[in-house]
Amino acid sequence: MGGDHGPSVTIPAAINFLKRESDAELILVGLQDVLHAELKKCHADAHPRVTVQHASEQVTMDDPLEVALRRKKDSSMRVAIEQVKDGKAQACVSAGNTGALMAVSRYVLKTMPGVDRPAICTIMPNMKDGPTYLMDLGANVDCEPHHLHQFAIMGSVLAHAMEGIARPTIGLLNVGTEDIKGNEVVKATIPLLQADHARGKLNFYGNVEGNDIFKGTTDVVICDGFVGNVMLKAIEGLARFFKTVLTTEFKRNPVTMLGALIARSALKRITKRLNPARYNGASLLGLRGLVFKSHGGADVEAYEWAIRRAYDAAKNDVQQQLADLIAELMPRETTTIG
Amino acid sequence: MGGDHGPSVTIPAAINFLKRESDAELILVGLQDVLHAELKKCHADAHPRVTVQHASEQVTMDDPLEVALRRKKDSSMRVAIEQVKDGKAQACVSAGNTGALMAVSRYVLKTMPGVDRPAICTIMPNMKDGPTYLMDLGANVDCEPHHLHQFAIMGSVLAHAMEGIARPTIGLLNVGTEDIKGNEVVKATIPLLQADHARGKLNFYGNVEGNDIFKGTTDVVICDGFVGNVMLKAIEGLARFFKTVLTTEFKRNPVTMLGALIARSALKRITKRLNPARYNGASLLGLRGLVFKSHGGADVEAYEWAIRRAYDAAKNDVQQQLADLIAELMPRETTTIG
Repeated sequence: MGGDHGPSVTIPAAINFLKRESDAELILVGLQDVLHAELKKCHADAHPRVTVQHASEQVTMDDPLEVALRRKKDSSMRVAIEQVKDGKAQACVSAGNTGALMAVSRYVLKTMPGVDRPAICTIMPNMKDGPTYLMDLGANVDCEPHHLHQFAIMGSVLAHAMEGIARPTIGLLNVGTEDIKGNEVVKATIPLLQADHARGKLNFYGNVEGNDIFKGTTDVVICDGFVGNVMLKAIEGLARFFKTVLTTEFKRNPVTMLGALIARSALKRITKRLNPARYNGASLLGLRGLVFKSHGGADVEAYEWAIRRAYDAAKNDVQQQLADLIAELMPRETTTIG
Repeated sequence: MGGDHGPSVTIPAAINFLKRESDAELILVGLQDVLHAELKKCHADAHPRVTVQHASEQVTMDDPLEVALRRKKDSSMRVAIEQVKDGKAQACVSAGNTGALMAVSRYVLKTMPGVDRPAICTIMPNMKDGPTYLMDLGANVDCEPHHLHQFAIMGSVLAHAMEGIARPTIGLLNVGTEDIKGNEVVKATIPLLQADHARGKLNFYGNVEGNDIFKGTTDVVICDGFVGNVMLKAIEGLARFFKTVLTTEFKRNPVTMLGALIARSALKRITKRLNPARYNGASLLGLRGLVFKSHGGADVEAYEWAIRRAYDAAKNDVQQQLADLIAELMPRETTTIG
């Protein structure tokens, strides 16, 4: 039910996803009449791998956390997460309110043993034509070193499970590459990651800078949720700005339009390489169950990518891998600053 | 002498600048033989508005701060800043090592009364085709609320003086627009800015998010130096990634090249609107003198923009305006967190 477009996007995306993955099954959660009507439009009302689970309420983008948590107990978001808790689903995908999704997920699923705070991880395109895993993106605005340490472990497991990288490289986002650089929290995080590296448990590359995200210097980049959130939104803002300028200038007059028409294969490839749809689907990591967040403004293609990411995570058993590495590396240390 | 290209870029830029501004004079600081040779190449060896000030050393990009501060007392960087201190120059421009430039500037010029920490402010293009002033960009990685408050005052004065905006709007970079959002430092900064707004002294808009930088929601965006630095580098990285993809794809084959040729007016306008050269020249604010930092990789056009920004700042008396507003608004409060 979530996102800017609701079932008119999520249902076609779900049906496209099922065409691609012949062993997948979907439980669609929300107002059953609306969902059935949308399924009918997609000629999939009796799809053998679709179940509709009714939920009478929805969490809106403006609902305070308290409303999502305590008042709307039959929201599509909550009922979807409960499917994971009850073992009926292996993962949940939502395009709804991020803060509410995290809060309800924490409440319903609880945090994984050894994890202090779940975090949000997304992927970014890079110049090596691979993804860079980036976290945290806003779940934790005030972090201590042991939180960043846990993010590194979770990011490493996710990149390993999703990309098949044997030992993903981890970069700590910083204002310079030397060990002496950084704010107090980041500086105190470096030795924790170095220790895991020395034990052969994490492939810690060292500090990276903002531009390394797009260079693809490391497979994973770690930062606190404040930095991650404002940076992600700045990146999205610049991408939108760039797209607007490109579109406006090529549409300016018949000559430039002709040029764009002739060069349309280039423009298509540019769109494909920078395509934000391919990078849709952020993971909420560190919960006792898989939850994925789609961009609210996602279109059918982008929402399908979010479902695919959730499917890949379930198929590659991200949860078990996470639990194993955390149990091994997290002796409940709590390095606190300030 | 600074930057990736040294006098082969800075001298032609200086001569171009002098052509544009008929009342300006320049003191070129560095190895006099090298500078004279470069001036000769530009047919400007006897330019009536150029003085060469010899300095026997240079601060390199790899020099530790201690070397820049204590060992190289006759560096071009230091001698250039001393010109400002001695009243021989109204502003200093350098493409050298940012950390060294800030450290030497603080040492030679000292901090302005009422300012705890100088900060670095740059401008970004936005969708309104105007600049967004953004600070701090890395001088201060651990900030307290009163530091962010001072950055807001300095940013407001700079935008006012440079753009002629009567009451520049100030946005506080945050993870959401509501007052309850943010990390502890940011949350404690909001009431300080609201108080100045209520007194009619600062035009505080409220919280802004990363994408607002490019939307042009406010004239000035304030953040701590850690956030500003990693975000700026991420933005630069993404811009470089765009440019690479655009260039590669248009050059891929004769057809796409033909398209690009036909649409070249569009591509030119795209380059112009997103042109990083126009946005070169960051201000080191809060010192007892004007210092501007050019990007190390600046070309002739970009370096000329940095000189022009320094010239505009001197002409519009940024220093006096800063001193006045700081004296008025800074009752030496020190709101500390933690």
